[in-house]
Amino acid sequence: MPEISETGLSKDEIETPALLIDLDALERNINKMADYFSKVEASLRPHAKTHKTPIIAHKQIKVGAIGVCCQKLSEAEVMVASGIDDVLITNEVVNPSKIKRLVSLSKHGRIIVAVDDLEIAKATSETAVKTGVKQDVVIEVNVGLNRCGVEPGKPTVEFAKKLLKLKGLNLVGLLGYEGSFFNISDFEERKKAANARNKLLIETRDLLEDAGITVEIVSAGATGTYNITGEYPGITEIEAGSYVFMDTTYTRLAGLDFEYALTLLTTVISRPALERAVVDAGLKEVTKEFGMPQVKDVEGATLQSLSEEHGTLRLEKTVDLKIGDKIELIPSHCCTTVNLHDKYYCLRDGVVEAVWNIAARGKIR
Amino acid sequence: MPEISETGLSKDEIETPALLIDLDALERNINKMADYFSKVEASLRPHAKTHKTPIIAHKQIKVGAIGVCCQKLSEAEVMVASGIDDVLITNEVVNPSKIKRLVSLSKHGRIIVAVDDLEIAKATSETAVKTGVKQDVVIEVNVGLNRCGVEPGKPTVEFAKKLLKLKGLNLVGLLGYEGSFFNISDFEERKKAANARNKLLIETRDLLEDAGITVEIVSAGATGTYNITGEYPGITEIEAGSYVFMDTTYTRLAGLDFEYALTLLTTVISRPALERAVVDAGLKEVTKEFGMPQVKDVEGATLQSLSEEHGTLRLEKTVDLKIGDKIELIPSHCCTTVNLHDKYYCLRDGVVEAVWNIAARGKIR
Repeated sequence: MPEISETGLSKDEIETPALLIDLDALERNINKMADYFSKVEASLRPHAKTHKTPIIAHKQIKVGAIGVCCQKLSEAEVMVASGIDDVLITNEVVNPSKIKRLVSLSKHGRIIVAVDDLEIAKATSETAVKTGVKQDVVIEVNVGLNRCGVEPGKPTVEFAKKLLKLKGLNLVGLLGYEGSFFNISDFEERKKAANARNKLLIETRDLLEDAGITVEIVSAGATGTYNITGEYPGITEIEAGSYVFMDTTYTRLAGLDFEYALTLLTTVISRPALERAVVDAGLKEVTKEFGMPQVKDVEGATLQSLSEEHGTLRLEKTVDLKIGDKIELIPSHCCTTVNLHDKYYCLRDGVVEAVWNIAARGKIR
Repeated sequence: MPEISETGLSKDEIETPALLIDLDALERNINKMADYFSKVEASLRPHAKTHKTPIIAHKQIKVGAIGVCCQKLSEAEVMVASGIDDVLITNEVVNPSKIKRLVSLSKHGRIIVAVDDLEIAKATSETAVKTGVKQDVVIEVNVGLNRCGVEPGKPTVEFAKKLLKLKGLNLVGLLGYEGSFFNISDFEERKKAANARNKLLIETRDLLEDAGITVEIVSAGATGTYNITGEYPGITEIEAGSYVFMDTTYTRLAGLDFEYALTLLTTVISRPALERAVVDAGLKEVTKEFGMPQVKDVEGATLQSLSEEHGTLRLEKTVDLKIGDKIELIPSHCCTTVNLHDKYYCLRDGVVEAVWNIAARGKIR
């Protein structure tokens, strides 16, 4: 359907399944996080992997964010094409063809990329020299997540010294994602766990500075640790993404009082038994790796199972639901759920105010 | 990138992550299933929810399939637009706006839809009359999956009698998906479980025929039961989908010797430790609700975890993998993995022979 006809629809008129944004809640989340970062030394560079949508990134920047993070080069290309000129790619870019795309993108904005390997750094430097740019890089440091990254301390210092010899690169700092710790609901426990890793990162920064290496950027943090890592001395920017939408996993964490701004609108397509209703959304529309999505505002209804295109609700006998009724589900993982959709239906006061294309959906390369 | 430049690439030149089809394996799977159905009474109406791609549907039809199944009306619209004129929507369509789309689509082919509710049937009939078509319907019967569907036996007969009074509808039969039983690896056990449900469906058909109601179609079956339900007397067509690609879940089932035709090509982006490599694909590119995908052809490497955009491999010390190396993952669930992608890179003899758009990806409404 053309988007023009969807603006102005009431929630009940939207065809389902449809991903909804509560615009008031989204704006409050964006403003609340901006307010926090106006009061601490660290800056906010929100992760665009969550929303994958330029207009939301621009809204974040308008109230103080210093740019965005992306996980994929193609996401960064979408953001730059939308006019954003400061992007940190929190991941390694290693293929020759992608390195070409990376350094070309650096002609249109400040693009910073993570590196953790000398051969890749050399290849990136050579391509940058040929293209006539200096490619900004941060060293990814393994502070305990055991995914990518150079080991903290001396190995990072040795690696940094080698990078400084590469003419096409501009070493600007460190990336040390400590993990979101969404499994630690208690704030003090989460703080202890995150700061043990932040300490490794800042000790490594100190070693670099002792060796005379300037460290402009120390990037870390996530929604689950924004008010922990965001206050850790020396961390310069925070990568939080999910706070714009929130999900049922994040709201279990103490100290995170952002609002649900994202729901999946579904329709009851079958009501075969008193205790059962089936909605028109399954795993192709909402994810469950962090647990079942939550039914919004229907007392006595819980989502029991998700197959590919069906969601089966278990109902208490008092629940009055009929075929055609609309049900909203609150995702347990907003990032992977957004990844399944092409559009947001953005509501204010129950009416579609805008339909936004999720421009970086499918941008996986 | 324009598709024209991707045809002719070698596997190593494809940017990753990328969904690959082994064309020889795909064609053997399609032909093997067609061969089976040339020898039994039931017909094959493959489920397009797996591949979501017209050209694959046409290949299935070319060797004997009688049409396709779809789960979503918008998938059916894609198939009809591609020239397919016999589609069974194995799901209920209930919203007034969708019912309009459904009956309009019926002007361009035979579209059969599942019904399990009288009010929806009435609304569908009225819209069909206004549009000047007879809308084909099958009654979805709950043979034990406890999702949608009328209860088998008398309730279905009573429902059928009411449907026959609706002028806009043409009742053509029954839909009774018995479940794929991918958790029962033993063939005889699976047969027992499936046939207990098939029995309910055929008994219900018998009751309808006793009441003078013609039953043209009795649709059931899946890849996991194609050679069980496909031989059950009275079942007229089978809904198998996954056999075209297969996945690690289905290959655990005895009696299913289709080949892996779908893999996810990834690149090693980090090799931070002897026992660890990280590839550039995570939950946004491959699903894990049925278990971890399997590493193809790399002895001693197993996929240990999937985060959003990273896959972490655990390596035995003998494994020689370096950054930039390509690794293929075999999905544990082909249908939900395909749902994450926009394109197939179709290979023969290691070279890209075609790039196919997954035209019905994102067609969720």
